[in-house]
This record gives sequence, structure tokens and C-alpha cells, in this order.
Amino acid sequence: MSLMTSWVAGANAPDCDFPLNNLPYGVFEDGKGARMGVAIGDYVLDVGAVDHRLDPALFAAPSWNAVMAAGPEVWAALRARLIELLGDEAHRAAVEPGLVPLAEVALLMPFAVTEYTDFYAAKNHAFNVGSMFRGPENALPPNWLSIPIGYNGRASSVVVSGAEVRRPWGQLKAPDAELPEFAPCRRFDLELEMGAIVGTPSDGMVSVAQADEMIFGYVLLNDWSARDIQAWEYQPLGPFQSKATATTISPWIVTAAALAPFRISTPERERELLPYLSEPGPMLYDIALEVALAPEGGEEVVISRTNYSEMYYSAAQQLCHHTSSGCAMRTGDLLGSGTISGTTPDSRGSLLEMSWGGKEPLALPGGETRSFLEDGDTLTLRGAAQGDGYRIGFGESTGKVLPAVPQPDWIKD
Amino acid sequence: MSLMTSWVAGANAPDCDFPLNNLPYGVFEDGKGARMGVAIGDYVLDVGAVDHRLDPALFAAPSWNAVMAAGPEVWAALRARLIELLGDEAHRAAVEPGLVPLAEVALLMPFAVTEYTDFYAAKNHAFNVGSMFRGPENALPPNWLSIPIGYNGRASSVVVSGAEVRRPWGQLKAPDAELPEFAPCRRFDLELEMGAIVGTPSDGMVSVAQADEMIFGYVLLNDWSARDIQAWEYQPLGPFQSKATATTISPWIVTAAALAPFRISTPERERELLPYLSEPGPMLYDIALEVALAPEGGEEVVISRTNYSEMYYSAAQQLCHHTSSGCAMRTGDLLGSGTISGTTPDSRGSLLEMSWGGKEPLALPGGETRSFLEDGDTLTLRGAAQGDGYRIGFGESTGKVLPAVPQPDWIKD
Repeated sequence: MSLMTSWVAGANAPDCDFPLNNLPYGVFEDGKGARMGVAIGDYVLDVGAVDHRLDPALFAAPSWNAVMAAGPEVWAALRARLIELLGDEAHRAAVEPGLVPLAEVALLMPFAVTEYTDFYAAKNHAFNVGSMFRGPENALPPNWLSIPIGYNGRASSVVVSGAEVRRPWGQLKAPDAELPEFAPCRRFDLELEMGAIVGTPSDGMVSVAQADEMIFGYVLLNDWSARDIQAWEYQPLGPFQSKATATTISPWIVTAAALAPFRISTPERERELLPYLSEPGPMLYDIALEVALAPEGGEEVVISRTNYSEMYYSAAQQLCHHTSSGCAMRTGDLLGSGTISGTTPDSRGSLLEMSWGGKEPLALPGGETRSFLEDGDTLTLRGAAQGDGYRIGFGESTGKVLPAVPQPDWIKD
Repeated sequence: MSLMTSWVAGANAPDCDFPLNNLPYGVFEDGKGARMGVAIGDYVLDVGAVDHRLDPALFAAPSWNAVMAAGPEVWAALRARLIELLGDEAHRAAVEPGLVPLAEVALLMPFAVTEYTDFYAAKNHAFNVGSMFRGPENALPPNWLSIPIGYNGRASSVVVSGAEVRRPWGQLKAPDAELPEFAPCRRFDLELEMGAIVGTPSDGMVSVAQADEMIFGYVLLNDWSARDIQAWEYQPLGPFQSKATATTISPWIVTAAALAPFRISTPERERELLPYLSEPGPMLYDIALEVALAPEGGEEVVISRTNYSEMYYSAAQQLCHHTSSGCAMRTGDLLGSGTISGTTPDSRGSLLEMSWGGKEPLALPGGETRSFLEDGDTLTLRGAAQGDGYRIGFGESTGKVLPAVPQPDWIKD
């Protein structure tokens, strides 16, 4: 696959996130109301304003859920028509009025999140966290090589890039304290993840192949995590309020179709998977990822570089397992991959790992250090699949940490 | 509080679940389309068909979500108007055409579940389960007396009374096996719970008092649980597929207003609660509960009797804690109380406890025994608050266990 050229300005530059090969879907607002858009070069195309040849009802609400629910034939028809309209100069006059400069729009939530599930399915992350708490010999839980471990998260926590994130309050218990206190989180962290979005629903068990076909697209995902709240609350039923403050996603849904040339297989298995989880083909993707941190008023610095290919389980395997008990999946369900860490210290997907539980603070330029996030820090995730002379970019996903709210007056001292 | 009399047949009988004091909200279907209804005596009133004096848009969809979102003033106005219409004989002629015999209707989901959270907040249940696995000295986890422990469940699993429930498949690992297998669950269980329904939304931390005002009403809830799937999957991130097969709720939402005379306080604390969780008044309810089991073709037998007052944390405390990290709550969020067990063997809320992990099978009439549920078993939950000469009943919540689906052909042996 090579670059597909477009007549839209900026779309053919090798470092453009949004060439014609990509066509990611978002929702934008330019002062004339929120609408469904597709990113192309330096512009966003108002999809509802062009001759898309599909049911206009699909573009009536500022959300991609209706298109997602319409299924793979509609997805393919829309993509083919957009390639025609934006690739062929002959359509320029008709289409150009629907282009709005990206620099002039605000990007909103691209879809309504129905339910949110988060996984724990990148081996280096699980190994790092397990090593910290149980030593390297017992790092992976006994079920880890058999189950794409997941837990249900909170859909109401999902926000789009740009939303500011308030440091949460919670129950914290210092290791040497007998009892917990209720206080603002002191170990607030990021988690670098990818999110997979369920397009077509299911009712009952589906195979890995069927699950793969249900996935509409992918976003970058930051699963903000309160490590001190988590440490005290998570036994025996898992993380709860530690993960409920915010989950930031990138504003553009990069479709499975755009990522198709970048499919790769999940890694060799130490333990053979149960047959229901075996993959009929490559269902993971080669997507380079990075995390950048900018202290308040300071320079941004990249603190981690890793790749989605570090996953031990693909989103299709996770989704298949999610349906194994008969659990119904619905349009708009969001599946977080789990934190994606590589094998080296500079490829870790959380500050918990980068600072090894706070014991080895990360040095930032200018002499600052970070064990966990400070108020005012802005985090930016970026990701792209690199093709031959073009790339499929996800754009940026940012979030700034705001100080905790003051103590509410109904919390007596 | 004593019986409020109604002119509707059956409503004044002391053993009627639905006197004028109750007025629970549901959705019914009688061959003329699904509509919003209120149970009264032997009838359901088609609420949209009477002069309710509220915005008709609140009754346009067959779901109580719009009314729930409208807030406490609308809830109070609707209840007052229904008491007027159904209590005063003068309205009989105008209202009677809107009454449909309960025996002639099917009851549907009363509201759309936005997100579902399940707690672990009745002490006897936590103590029983903990004793089985860790011995009575270490039964309660260290955080149990401080946190109303909860985990996010799966909203798509929630079904209404009457829905049949398929025994799930899942990863199971026998204690003496080295590796798991993928097979139908062998330890399928019930959990007797109450569900609290969020009416008005919140964004940010709320107090226990504010949380109490957000709750629209309560239902009976059976959190079907696959114990063998749970045992293998739940470390370290909590229950996932073991709880995702089905969650059955009763069809009538009994409002907080109807239950107000039955408020009681949560129990004395062994460990003082953190101030944010302290209750400004009684926020738990005295509601008698029972579970009945009927084998296929056999007689029903009551296998447990307990009371909602066995809870250590009220729904208001659970909801307050749920918002403590800033987690937004929305209209239609459902909070399961956690399994409600009393102190005696005949008041336990799950077969896991009744059969003590399968070691002491429960004897049923006719010589059958149960360690866990068998295919064909029908479970029925019932609940009522007992007043002076009347009761606030929840009706019944039933579910029958169907055999697992055959092995899908895409699961190779």
C-alpha cells in the first residue's frame, strides 16, 4: 500500500496524520453547530453536507453511533464514496464548500460510549506491575496467560481530548497507617492505551473472527489512574473509584479499514491458548505510540515511546472473551487495551512503571522530576501507523491535570 | 402510617402488594403497545391515559427514564396526583378506562439501565464468603469496614423478571487441574439483592444526603453468578464474565417515597466511618425478602428469608462513595446492594453460602438436593415492607435456568 493522493491541501505530505488512506471520523463544532466530520489533510469535511449517497438519517445526530450500528456494508460504502469525492479532482467544486480548516474547529466526543471495559493485556505492563508487588518470579497472575483479563469501567468517565481532569479525592491508606483517610489523590497516573470501538452489536458468544468484524475503529486512550486509591480499594473486587475520574480518548476514530495494511499477529504463546481464543489471522496492528508531558508553563518532553504490537491479546480476542458468558455487546461499547509497555524503561506506559512505584523519579529537562503527575501537567498521547511515504495518524489526545476541588463543607473534619 | 384506601378492586386487601400507599412504576404491554403503568390492586393504570397534569412528553416513551430525570418535584407531583385519582371515588369514571387487569399484561423493563454497579456491602455475606476462603479470623478484607466495596457490572446483562437465563460457558479450572478448560459453568448461582435506581444525575462528589435524594426507587435484583468462572478469573481485577450472563430485576420500581415510612438506620459500626460516609438520618429500609426455588416440574420451596436491613451500607452511602472520585452518575444508573444474608443458615442470599461452597448440599422436598442451580430450576425473589394493615410489595422477580448452548462449531476440540 502506498499514498493515495487527494486534492485537499496538506493531505499528501508524508508527515500528515490524515491522508486519503486514513479518513478518520470525528465530530466538530465551528460555531455553526456540532456535525459529523472526516479529517483530510489540513481540513475536516462536513460529511452530511456532501453527496454521500447514504441514508441522511445516518448523519442526523452529531455522533457516529448510527453509522457504526449500520454495519460493515455501510462502512465500506461510505469509505469508498469518500475516497472518490476527496481523491478525484472532478468532485472538487461540489465538495470544497464542505471543508472547514482543522485550525478553526473544536473537536467533540466522536461517539456516545455505551459501556466501557478496560483490559490488562500487554505482557510487559503486567510483568512490571506484578514484579513491583510480588517479585519477578510471581509477576504474572496464574490466569494471565489464559485469559485476556478485563474489568468493567465507567462509561460516564470517558471524555474527549482537551477536557481538563480534576485530581480526585478518595480513600487512601499509607502503608504504615492503621486506618485510611479521605484526601486528594497523591499518586495520580496516566495509562497509555488504545481503545477499540464496537460497531455492530452481538447477543451471545461470538468467535474471534466475528469479533474482529464487529470492531468499527480505534482511538488513543488514557486511562487516568489514582494509584493510592487503587491500592487500598482493589481487593477483592478490582479497581473502582481509582479508575472513575476520567478516561480521555482521541477525537478521531481511525477505522479498522484504514489500519488494515498494518495488521500483525499477536506474539508466540508460552502457553497454548484455549481454542475459542485462537486467531484465524493477524488481528493486532503495528502502531507507534508516544506519551509527552508538559509541566505547567514548561516545555513538552516525550517520556515514553512504545507500540500497540506489544499487546499479548488483540482487541478481537478481548471482545470474543467478553462475549464468552453470553454478555451482549452494543454499538458504542469501548474496550481499552490495557496499558501498553515495551521491554525497556523508556517504553513504559505509566508513571507507576517509569518511576518504579515512585522509587526512581523520572528526570525532566530543567531539573524537575516526576514520580506521579503534578497539578498543571499536560499529557499528550500520539500514535500513527507508518506506511510507505504516508502515515495513518490518530492526531493528539491531551489532558491537563487540575488541582483537586477544595474540601466540601459536608465533609466534617 | 396506615392503609390509604383506594376505589380500585383488590387495593385495600392486607396482603395486596400494591395498595394506594405503594404506586410502583412499571412498563406493560397488553397487545396495544408498551406503555408506562402504575400498579394498583389487581390492575395496572395506563398513566399516560389519565389527566396527570404533567408534561405529556414525560410519558411518550415506554420507559420511566424521562420522569426519573425530571427530578424530585415532578416525582412528588405525580405521586400526589395519582393518590388523588386512585384514592378519591369522584375520579372513578374518568380513570377507570385506563385500568387494565394485571392478569392480562406482560411486564417489560421499567427503565433503560444506563450503567450497572454491584456492591459487596452486607456483612454476613462478606463474612460467610470470606470464612469459606480464608477462615473466620480473616473473613473480612481489611478495607471492608471502611469502604462500601463495589465493582462495575454490565448494564447489557440486566433483564426483567420472566426472562430465561442460559447457563454460561466460561474458563473453568478445577482446583487440582494445571490448566483451565472452556466449558459450561458447573457452579451457577443466584445472589439475592436489592437494586437502587439513580433518578437525578450528578457531576462531581455528592454527600450521602444528596445521594439519598437522587435515588428514585428500588427493585429486587438477582445477580446470577458463575462461581467457577469467578474463582479462576477474579484475581487481580475482580469479577468479569462470571457476572455478565444476566442480572434479573423485578418489573416494578417501588419509589423511595412509598418506602419512606420504613426507613431504618444502618447498624452500629465496629470501626468509625470516615466523615464523608456518615449518614445524617436513617437511609436503609426494613424490607422482608425471600428466595424460592422450583425444580423443573416440581413444587416451589422457599430456600431463604432475610431482610434488606442486614446491609452494612445503605444505597445512599454506596452512591456517595461512587461519586467520591468525581465519577458522574446518570439517570438510569442501577446500583446492586450486594448479596443480602442474615446470620442464620436459612437467611443466606446465595447457594454458595447455603451449601457452604457445595460441601453441604441443600435438601429440597422430594429428596432432591442442590449445591448450585440445575437446568430447569426457576428462581423467584419476593419482597415487601410490612405496614400496619398494608404492605409495600415488590411483586415477584423470576428467572428460569436454561441449559447451556451447544458447543459452537468455531470452537475446535
